[in-house]
Amino acid sequence: MPRDVHILSAASSLPGAAVDNAALAGRFGMDALWEQWVDVFIGTRSRHLALDLASGTVTSTLAELASDAGGKALAAAGVAPAEVDAVVLATATPDKLMPATVNVVADRLGIDQVRSFQLQSGCSGAVQALDVARHILLAGDARTVLVLGGDVVARFWDVHRDLRAAAPQELVNYVLFGDAAGAAVLSAGPGPGSATVRTLFTRLVGLGREPGAVLEWYAPADRDTDRPAATEDYKAIERHVPEMTGEVLRELLERTGWKDGDVDLLLPPQLSGRMTRLITERLGLPEAREVSCVDEAGNCGNAIVFLQLEQALPLLAGGRRAAGVSIESSKWIKAGFALEGDGGDAA
Amino acid sequence: MPRDVHILSAASSLPGAAVDNAALAGRFGMDALWEQWVDVFIGTRSRHLALDLASGTVTSTLAELASDAGGKALAAAGVAPAEVDAVVLATATPDKLMPATVNVVADRLGIDQVRSFQLQSGCSGAVQALDVARHILLAGDARTVLVLGGDVVARFWDVHRDLRAAAPQELVNYVLFGDAAGAAVLSAGPGPGSATVRTLFTRLVGLGREPGAVLEWYAPADRDTDRPAATEDYKAIERHVPEMTGEVLRELLERTGWKDGDVDLLLPPQLSGRMTRLITERLGLPEAREVSCVDEAGNCGNAIVFLQLEQALPLLAGGRRAAGVSIESSKWIKAGFALEGDGGDAA
Repeated sequence: MPRDVHILSAASSLPGAAVDNAALAGRFGMDALWEQWVDVFIGTRSRHLALDLASGTVTSTLAELASDAGGKALAAAGVAPAEVDAVVLATATPDKLMPATVNVVADRLGIDQVRSFQLQSGCSGAVQALDVARHILLAGDARTVLVLGGDVVARFWDVHRDLRAAAPQELVNYVLFGDAAGAAVLSAGPGPGSATVRTLFTRLVGLGREPGAVLEWYAPADRDTDRPAATEDYKAIERHVPEMTGEVLRELLERTGWKDGDVDLLLPPQLSGRMTRLITERLGLPEAREVSCVDEAGNCGNAIVFLQLEQALPLLAGGRRAAGVSIESSKWIKAGFALEGDGGDAA
Repeated sequence: MPRDVHILSAASSLPGAAVDNAALAGRFGMDALWEQWVDVFIGTRSRHLALDLASGTVTSTLAELASDAGGKALAAAGVAPAEVDAVVLATATPDKLMPATVNVVADRLGIDQVRSFQLQSGCSGAVQALDVARHILLAGDARTVLVLGGDVVARFWDVHRDLRAAAPQELVNYVLFGDAAGAAVLSAGPGPGSATVRTLFTRLVGLGREPGAVLEWYAPADRDTDRPAATEDYKAIERHVPEMTGEVLRELLERTGWKDGDVDLLLPPQLSGRMTRLITERLGLPEAREVSCVDEAGNCGNAIVFLQLEQALPLLAGGRRAAGVSIESSKWIKAGFALEGDGGDAA
């Protein structure tokens, strides 16, 4: 059984063109002050939406985005669908409750006769999916695992609402989130341009804590409910996420034996452009290059880590090191991973 | 790292009293012929529902049922919440999209600072959850894992509908399914009354196949949709599930080296009372005792395997052997496991 697992490749899929804050403001008749408010307090410049803003029609399913990302990741790793031994997908927003989206993605990619798992998760889902893949590899039940993550929040948009009357804690959902999917190929052995997973963990820390984010689904009998679909305790998130990020980073350094100056790349949480900047400043790793995607892609949930990995992998060649942190505020999960580039001559 | 994993205990939680076919017929004004039709073609005698049939109010959440089952399984194994290193839950019907129900269950049970995973899955979810737990144990990342599975389909019931006008493929959903949760404690080492997992696998076989079962969730913008929430291709299920069950059983015998006569207990799929009987007859293991729960608990999705394990574990003492098969028709997954009782003096 292998002692280490390796990330061979990573890829992403973003629906349509970037939608900036001015476009959102225009669509919903918000004033210029609102656009400034988003710029200052959220700091996310744009996001991609699987949504036709004019009509409210959902334009991409999670299965479509994840298949696209998965196909790119396999091609980048030089792995054929028939060589994939297991598929793991993480999402908060599956296309349906059954069948699981992961199995639709496998079908689209021509992957069959393998283990498949779909994790229901918030922002830490990508790390949970990498963890499940890692355990399958370490247990010797696979050599190559396709790991996917993504979210389509477009279904929660109601373009017919008058957002000018919406409360801030609801309005924030319209600017924070973006739709995307990402993928990575994990292997029991290294490959060109791969990185070794030095350590990886996810840890529930929710005991006695109220959820910081709630996302509901409705059954037919719930149609008349007035329960809001999405609620965020933004203050709790702003308080806990930076603190937990510091704790995860320290734990990664302890587990790897790395010192602050050994971290070449930092992959921080991506809740909003502003919060990512606050978190990064607070961590105090001035020599580490920040790898973020939130400014242009928004908080794209289970896709985030894959978008970061896609940027980071080419920068890790020759033994360079990355520390990644993901914090899930829904019921509070800390997640982290440390990567080290495998070869010296990778692209 | 351990080479084997062990099931220390299993437990279940069923909401309220059993609801028999006569009670359903009475509630919905169906005639006596309908009740006979259910008896003959479905063969499920009763089920438990997390629903007040008179008012349509949902009476239990999945978190409540799973916490109850989980607490019982921990008590039966003599394992304290603080000794649990990871929690895995499988369901098709999470209480919310976020937070994942598994994390709410952990909070209720006093479990914290551990890995947690929630699988989105149909009938094979319990085996997938056992598989994820097994990989965590084999990889050496845990010593004790609490595994849970369950479904609350009560939210899909519409007691205000006139079912006398419903088509058979819709009506069947009202008699097939039941609500329940189950749990098992997995460990890297044996315990009193435990069984060794000799082999366990899940395998997607969905390439090019249409889903046999679909379960939708609705976002706020979907409220006016006329997409049905639940659809079943009962004919495809009736055709493929018995055949796939035979294939899984043969594979389990190959992997373990057991012969037909070595299987003391058979845990077959539990789609309906009638189909389970057809499947068991077709398998031709006359010496194996069948362990089923469908007649009294209905098809309770991700809880099924735990209800079967609760019955089976005490019967495995002294090296007796069980073969379990689960087939997921949503996008077609074959799943199977083989157990062997650990001690000679267990209860």
